[in-house]
Amino acid sequence: MSDGDHANERPAPESRRKGTSQPSPEIRKTDDPAPFLTRIFRSLTRHRSADAQGADRGAGRVAALCHALLSERGEVSGARLATDVLSAYRALDAPAVDAFFDFLVLEFSPDPAAIERAADAYHAIPSQANLIRLQAAVEPPRQELFRRFNMAEGGISLLVEMRRQLLPTLGAHPQRAGIDIDLLHLFRSWFNRGFLVLRQIDWRTSALVLERLIHYESVHQIQGWDDLHRRLEGDRRCYAFFHPALPDEPLIFIEVALTRGMTAKVQPLLDLKSPVIDPATTDCAIFYSITNCQMGLRGVSFGNFLIKQVAEDLGRAFPRLKTFATLSPVPGFRDWLIRASQSSAPALSPKLMMLLETFERGAPIEERLFGPELRAEITRLCAYYLLHAKRGRAPLDPVARFHLANGARLQRINWMGDTSQTGMTRSLGLTANYLYRLADVEHNHEAYAQEHHIVASHQLERLARHAQHVG
Amino acid sequence: MSDGDHANERPAPESRRKGTSQPSPEIRKTDDPAPFLTRIFRSLTRHRSADAQGADRGAGRVAALCHALLSERGEVSGARLATDVLSAYRALDAPAVDAFFDFLVLEFSPDPAAIERAADAYHAIPSQANLIRLQAAVEPPRQELFRRFNMAEGGISLLVEMRRQLLPTLGAHPQRAGIDIDLLHLFRSWFNRGFLVLRQIDWRTSALVLERLIHYESVHQIQGWDDLHRRLEGDRRCYAFFHPALPDEPLIFIEVALTRGMTAKVQPLLDLKSPVIDPATTDCAIFYSITNCQMGLRGVSFGNFLIKQVAEDLGRAFPRLKTFATLSPVPGFRDWLIRASQSSAPALSPKLMMLLETFERGAPIEERLFGPELRAEITRLCAYYLLHAKRGRAPLDPVARFHLANGARLQRINWMGDTSQTGMTRSLGLTANYLYRLADVEHNHEAYAQEHHIVASHQLERLARHAQHVG
Amino acid sequence: MSDGDHANERPAPESRRKGTSQPSPEIRKTDDPAPFLTRIFRSLTRHRSADAQGADRGAGRVAALCHALLSERGEVSGARLATDVLSAYRALDAPAVDAFFDFLVLEFSPDPAAIERAADAYHAIPSQANLIRLQAAVEPPRQELFRRFNMAEGGISLLVEMRRQLLPTLGAHPQRAGIDIDLLHLFRSWFNRGFLVLRQIDWRTSALVLERLIHYESVHQIQGWDDLHRRLEGDRRCYAFFHPALPDEPLIFIEVALTRGMTAKVQPLLDLKSPVIDPATTDCAIFYSITNCQMGLRGVSFGNFLIKQVAEDLGRAFPRLKTFATLSPVPGFRDWLIRASQSSAPALSPKLMMLLETFERGAPIEERLFGPELRAEITRLCAYYLLHAKRGRAPLDPVARFHLANGARLQRINWMGDTSQTGMTRSLGLTANYLYRLADVEHNHEAYAQEHHIVASHQLERLARHAQHVG
Amino acid sequence: MSDGDHANERPAPESRRKGTSQPSPEIRKTDDPAPFLTRIFRSLTRHRSADAQGADRGAGRVAALCHALLSERGEVSGARLATDVLSAYRALDAPAVDAFFDFLVLEFSPDPAAIERAADAYHAIPSQANLIRLQAAVEPPRQELFRRFNMAEGGISLLVEMRRQLLPTLGAHPQRAGIDIDLLHLFRSWFNRGFLVLRQIDWRTSALVLERLIHYESVHQIQGWDDLHRRLEGDRRCYAFFHPALPDEPLIFIEVALTRGMTAKVQPLLDLKSPVIDPATTDCAIFYSITNCQMGLRGVSFGNFLIKQVAEDLGRAFPRLKTFATLSPVPGFRDWLIRASQSSAPALSPKLMMLLETFERGAPIEERLFGPELRAEITRLCAYYLLHAKRGRAPLDPVARFHLANGARLQRINWMGDTSQTGMTRSLGLTANYLYRLADVEHNHEAYAQEHHIVASHQLERLARHAQHVG
Repeated sequence: MSDGDHANERPAPESRRKGTSQPSPEIRKTDDPAPFLTRIFRSLTRHRSADAQGADRGAGRVAALCHALLSERGEVSGARLATDVLSAYRALDAPAVDAFFDFLVLEFSPDPAAIERAADAYHAIPSQANLIRLQAAVEPPRQELFRRFNMAEGGISLLVEMRRQLLPTLGAHPQRAGIDIDLLHLFRSWFNRGFLVLRQIDWRTSALVLERLIHYESVHQIQGWDDLHRRLEGDRRCYAFFHPALPDEPLIFIEVALTRGMTAKVQPLLDLKSPVIDPATTDCAIFYSITNCQMGLRGVSFGNFLIKQVAEDLGRAFPRLKTFATLSPVPGFRDWLIRASQSSAPALSPKLMMLLETFERGAPIEERLFGPELRAEITRLCAYYLLHAKRGRAPLDPVARFHLANGARLQRINWMGDTSQTGMTRSLGLTANYLYRLADVEHNHEAYAQEHHIVASHQLERLARHAQHVG
Repeated sequence: MSDGDHANERPAPESRRKGTSQPSPEIRKTDDPAPFLTRIFRSLTRHRSADAQGADRGAGRVAALCHALLSERGEVSGARLATDVLSAYRALDAPAVDAFFDFLVLEFSPDPAAIERAADAYHAIPSQANLIRLQAAVEPPRQELFRRFNMAEGGISLLVEMRRQLLPTLGAHPQRAGIDIDLLHLFRSWFNRGFLVLRQIDWRTSALVLERLIHYESVHQIQGWDDLHRRLEGDRRCYAFFHPALPDEPLIFIEVALTRGMTAKVQPLLDLKSPVIDPATTDCAIFYSITNCQMGLRGVSFGNFLIKQVAEDLGRAFPRLKTFATLSPVPGFRDWLIRASQSSAPALSPKLMMLLETFERGAPIEERLFGPELRAEITRLCAYYLLHAKRGRAPLDPVARFHLANGARLQRINWMGDTSQTGMTRSLGLTANYLYRLADVEHNHEAYAQEHHIVASHQLERLARHAQHVG
Repeated sequence: MSDGDHANERPAPESRRKGTSQPSPEIRKTDDPAPFLTRIFRSLTRHRSADAQGADRGAGRVAALCHALLSERGEVSGARLATDVLSAYRALDAPAVDAFFDFLVLEFSPDPAAIERAADAYHAIPSQANLIRLQAAVEPPRQELFRRFNMAEGGISLLVEMRRQLLPTLGAHPQRAGIDIDLLHLFRSWFNRGFLVLRQIDWRTSALVLERLIHYESVHQIQGWDDLHRRLEGDRRCYAFFHPALPDEPLIFIEVALTRGMTAKVQPLLDLKSPVIDPATTDCAIFYSITNCQMGLRGVSFGNFLIKQVAEDLGRAFPRLKTFATLSPVPGFRDWLIRASQSSAPALSPKLMMLLETFERGAPIEERLFGPELRAEITRLCAYYLLHAKRGRAPLDPVARFHLANGARLQRINWMGDTSQTGMTRSLGLTANYLYRLADVEHNHEAYAQEHHIVASHQLERLARHAQHVG
Repeated sequence: MSDGDHANERPAPESRRKGTSQPSPEIRKTDDPAPFLTRIFRSLTRHRSADAQGADRGAGRVAALCHALLSERGEVSGARLATDVLSAYRALDAPAVDAFFDFLVLEFSPDPAAIERAADAYHAIPSQANLIRLQAAVEPPRQELFRRFNMAEGGISLLVEMRRQLLPTLGAHPQRAGIDIDLLHLFRSWFNRGFLVLRQIDWRTSALVLERLIHYESVHQIQGWDDLHRRLEGDRRCYAFFHPALPDEPLIFIEVALTRGMTAKVQPLLDLKSPVIDPATTDCAIFYSITNCQMGLRGVSFGNFLIKQVAEDLGRAFPRLKTFATLSPVPGFRDWLIRASQSSAPALSPKLMMLLETFERGAPIEERLFGPELRAEITRLCAYYLLHAKRGRAPLDPVARFHLANGARLQRINWMGDTSQTGMTRSLGLTANYLYRLADVEHNHEAYAQEHHIVASHQLERLARHAQHVG
């Protein structure tokens, strides 16, 4: 971490005394200096402005409390100490939070020297005992620290918030990847499917939760309470996963419309004045929006479970439902089209190329601009895009990636399915239906997972073929 | 794992195909053979009886399902596969469970070669990325496997049960320590204090839970429903920790008597016919029994939190309560006395030595045998035992170890405090009161944790001093 | 109301000022002493022992509190006053409760003079307004008093208890019938079906409620917790009605066994060691016990609703269930047989008459005493008894009356269906199955209600016919 | 519906066969014809338009179902029949509802001849038995009918709705008073304080209930969800009474602001942007709005209980609260002032009289129009109004009547306490604080109830005195 003459620079040295997270300076001297930590450390401690020093001090105080929480005292007074840590952390401003992340790297990472020793011992004798020692040596003290956060009321939600704050800083601070991994590891364990509770959301749900749906919904923004109310009427369903320790905080939610026939268009669904259909007369459940609420839980996947469980539950409640499908955006289509227009395959008609250019120059995208030929061409190209445009071996379109990996089948694309400005801008108004046939989901998923094989309807496949020939 | 000519010996090769947990044979050949696994493996595969082979087959089928659960398919069909694993596991008989533990070692342990490579890379460049790789390499696939168990209804309780079955086998199978550590690691994360729910248990509690209290209580066995009912009357309190995923399963519970003055004797508390006192007239809360219910959660500590939270809650509900203390057994006293009688310090009176001998030969231990002198001597010796008899630097008596580490103060010992046969046999009828003064608990705990300093009343200290001199 | 010289006779005159309670009847007719009230009053006030005077004093204090509760003050301080009334009432011993009932008659009955006046006014002009005045005049102040009891915690359960105490005294005190009618009127309103909550009782139910089932069950007594537990296993169901204001107090409960085929015998059902059947394999729901818990609610009928709702709920939960039937005692059979043996129709065989005589003399009733002929004869006679023995136009057997009035069909009688001592003694071991076919219940009920027509199986009718011819 | 000869006049004769509600025609002929019923009936049956005949037919169908519900069949198939009645009633349009009320009068009133007979019998022998018969004779069959409504889901809320529809028709149809009394009688029994549940309303309450608060609040209208949210922040409390059978339907609710000092002004309380105060720093609970939600429950008083229980609950939760007071409108002040200006006592200043005139002619009422002298005069007059203006012996102001009858003390009047248009128009901007001192409430109430004595602060009394002298 440092050579001898920087001994005094160590932050919060008194809290380090008891800590187990750091090599003692002697070890670091005789062993190898940990170059990457040293570099961070130097960058932290020199040339800092007064503001930065203030941030350091605030962050340092939180770090000191964290050391106490990890110490012996933490075992007996954990709840109180954890409460102190939480309050202190919450009082930090953005620069101090940033400084605190550096403390988490510097003072709560595994000890490189201890890792070396454990690795050497395991190398010599790869016994179970030596493996256990090596596992212990590589586990960052942060993990136990984070677990102890949870002894205080609100610990878990603070950790989710902390990761939300951390994620945008990872690009500029690659050394913080370890914090991220520790939090993600913890969240995967804590937000394990087995602990999640599926709750139906309706007009009897608390305003506190409903308000959060309004806030979080990002696919088709909710325009206030009246809009929300329409989405919770008798021909709609909404479900969310909750964690028992966060009873007011939806983790992910899905909005479903019960319809007659597979819906192609978004706008009628979102129309506040649309008539409420008797659900007993419907045959189709349309998943028209699915929203991950917690940025801080990125990488913990819920959507997959949610769709399938909701489909199963609805199927039981309404045996007449025959079709379970999404009504999804095609968010990457127009961008891809523009790039395609600059390459050669598939070829675009001159008319379409010209039109795209006018859009690029800012002309409004309106339905009336597309005659029958353009409509046919664009539809074919969209089929081609969904089936053949790739990022690596996977589909380029992120929504396609999600549903196909879940075992859905690409069933249909819909002309002018979303005429909102976003819909027109991103995908020239096209939407897609992904079909969830519960009996096929596993098989589809495996075909996709092993071969990146996309299961699509014949119609889609034919359209995509024509795109190549005609284009 | 093996040299070339044993390639065919690999058990359950079909389940290995998809698995990601194991090095491929080529790697193992070119790298170093994993000697300890090989040894296990050989012991497993030779000289097996027909029964043992049947057990292997059953266990192998569960292991194959486990591989599926860990595979790609597990991601999409996890809940179903986990349900299959659970049913299959539950159908195993004891030898098959034992065989399955071997599979867990053989097929779901980290890959030694991968560890070596990751350790080498980290040795060369101790970067964050290499650290993360090393952490991944040492994490057993079992951990993810166990997390996926939890996707099925009942997963968590099966895992607790599995560890209960595993623990007694660790002595004979040290290579299984890794399984134990993985489960313990998981349980410490899942049964984190922040997720536990404290519930008061009373006569309005479900019979399902109450029946389990009757079953689990081990300090002072509950003699059926009437006994339990008396323990839940108005002058008693009972609290338990629960996990939200196991709502009917108490993890630990504590029984409290609200009394006037600090109770010395167990039998009146347990008397079904004892009059029920108005709790408003009491000044003392006596913790007379604390029971860990789940053998499979050994090592996940709850008791510490429970006592303190219950003391705080009761203090708020009954501001007149001044004293929070246990009425505890002294389980190791007589055994220690016998050993002491064979050594020199502290010296025992000839009368006591003679009496102990008759007990050893089977004479019943009765109060009438102890005259005033013996009573005084034994009491002093018990004080000496609690304060000075050690295992390492900690008290020899396990109950003392628990409460003193929690920050309690050894307040009093009580002659004929427990005249049940168990009480007489284990401690010549003595009981101890450990005092929980919330204001001192943290300080006491630290003194104990750092110096193994025992905080005791003056009376106890004086008694202990006299034991040495007079003995 | 009276002329001057009787003024002093009025009891509790100060409370009468506002009250409308009672003049004596004589006063009204001849304006001379009212015999029945006077008698009560004199019996209350003269020649009373010291004990009785103490009871009067206690009851008088409660009555005075009742007047306060009914007064202006009661409107603003009702909850407190009602609480005082409740405590004071609860402190009364049996003689004081009895005296209090007299106060309820004397001081909280309608005012006869006011009734006369209102009746006269209505007679003169039968207008709506005069009708309303007459309705007000005949309503006893007790009704409002009882409603105000309910402002205190526990008011409703005290009223139920009060009626339980009142009922046995009605025979000796016919003037108390009005109290009974007022309470019944109130209870019919409060315990209206629309307010009752049907709850399934199982092993997750609170011990407080379960303990009461054990206490109340009177058809087939529950022999402690193990017996209860067996009755709540997977092949059994238990349901009870509760009132929201009495959440721990079952009003009525029914025990159901899910069986394969219509059960004939009680003892296997009650056998603690009987194997638990998978409910998915059953086709029959047997109602084997239905218990009204609250003596004080006699006359408020619940059973009728309970059976039908439980049958409907079970039918939805287990579509395979085809038969819903009771397994019922035939409680009046033997008594009737004895009386029949002394009359001429239907004629009993000499052998049976002799046997009945030995039973009357105390000989134990055992299965081995009945040969095939006796068995056939007794079975026929039982069919005859159920179909033709009457009380008025209704069946003599009270259980038959209940189920037939509910719309059930008398389906089968079972030889040695209940070999318990009670079963043998009351009905020579016979049991009956009443069948609840939901589709026929209303029709059966109407046939019964209008014509006392009993719907029975052909087999039962044939048996009953043979009883007459052969007997 | 019929011509003059009476045989055919019986409405719904088939349903009458079983009914007990009506005298048979013979009786009515030979006895006295019930003149008032006949008159109603004739008015109903002649000169009816086609529309009216349609309404009669619809209402007649409901009435026929009601007869069935009251019959034997109702006892066994009550739930189904009640459900049919409810649906049929809900399908009625306004004229048909009106016609149905006439059926309730004609066919479900007590039988006059039966009343006469019972009254005669009671006159002859005023025994308990005859009293009971008379009570039965005067009870309208409607009462039992309404009780049976409650066997269906939603019965109770339909009855509340029915009374809401009935009330406005009573003026024109005095013969319907009996229906009203029956419903009120039922509701007083069913909505008895002992059955009501006090629930705190906050942002965790269901949107369904919150939406109803927005709808019902009439004192200070709630301007949408943001306004409601502000009223549920940390320095506010809201409580409502609910009935267990109507869990989503608030019966009455009260809004409370926790403040520092007794608030005088409405507008700051209603300001959405007002800062949220830490409730721990407040000393005063201001009841600033109390709303009866159910028009159909008019006459069943809840407010009295609600204020007192909320004051008690808040006092326990926040021991620092010293003052419990309302911030109330003075709704009748300006109207009274105008009338006062036309009489002689108290005399108004010419300036004030002129100003009132300009307001009457439509000039806007604005604060700047009132100089210090007018302010002083108006304040005095308002004190005079509240203390001395009467309706009978009670205060003329309805809000004063309510709070003073509840035992509150008139504490203060506030200049420009409500500057909303309503506030200015009704009371020239004045508001009043009524103080609820729990210790005095009962005493104040009794003084008011017995003598109409108004408890007011000295300041108010002085102001009122000056009004008379100076005026």
